[in-house]
Amino acid sequence: MPAADTLERWHAFTATGDVAVLDELLADDVEFRPPTYWTPRRGKREVALILGAVAGVFEGFRYEREWVDGDDWALEFTARVGGLELKGVDLIRLDGEGRIVDFEVVARPPSAVAALRDAMAERLAALLPPSGS
Amino acid sequence: MPAADTLERWHAFTATGDVAVLDELLADDVEFRPPTYWTPRRGKREVALILGAVAGVFEGFRYEREWVDGDDWALEFTARVGGLELKGVDLIRLDGEGRIVDFEVVARPPSAVAALRDAMAERLAALLPPSGS
Repeated sequence: MPAADTLERWHAFTATGDVAVLDELLADDVEFRPPTYWTPRRGKREVALILGAVAGVFEGFRYEREWVDGDDWALEFTARVGGLELKGVDLIRLDGEGRIVDFEVVARPPSAVAALRDAMAERLAALLPPSGS
Repeated sequence: MPAADTLERWHAFTATGDVAVLDELLADDVEFRPPTYWTPRRGKREVALILGAVAGVFEGFRYEREWVDGDDWALEFTARVGGLELKGVDLIRLDGEGRIVDFEVVARPPSAVAALRDAMAERLAALLPPSGS
């Protein structure tokens, strides 16, 4: 799958929140590093759960500037969570087959990141083991 | 000043911490949005003070991937602060004269961002008015 197709499908996921799209987008051994804690999450099933939950937590999610350099992307976004504005960047790396293998999210300010952590913990409590710190 | 010159000088600043370099690099009305709180800082003098302090607080600062699209840059970095690893992205926009007019920093994880906030507060207490929240 060419990188441009992956980007188009990723945009389709962020527009719809349809997690079925993620099955072809994520590598089996994808690693996800969230803005809310240090410990990475690994594996397609777990990361798809997390991304699906994020899509349900963010309000008014919108990409702004996007830098796409082959398999390495930096996607700037804004969203609201718990009534607070959040700015973030999705740092994404594709594997040789156009699948997302590395996904790290950096964000600000800390008050909105804390609101995101709380909202995600509530959604994921029943679905995943504790995240560590 | 062409954008490529600005990037070269910015790298010179991050390598040396020499704040004199910033006088030509920053626009007079530059706006800085830190990873540690929401309220922006404005103006060359104040932002230069902050960037100089950051350079003294980070250990092992290193840029990783860099996306440069004309006047819009996303620069991924790693550093340590208070013994914790920090990942961040500098989101930079230049004005028409190649000067940095907008500088936003997003980062993770929250524990390292909090360590950065504490270290910066200590350094800046005597130099700047309180940052707000």
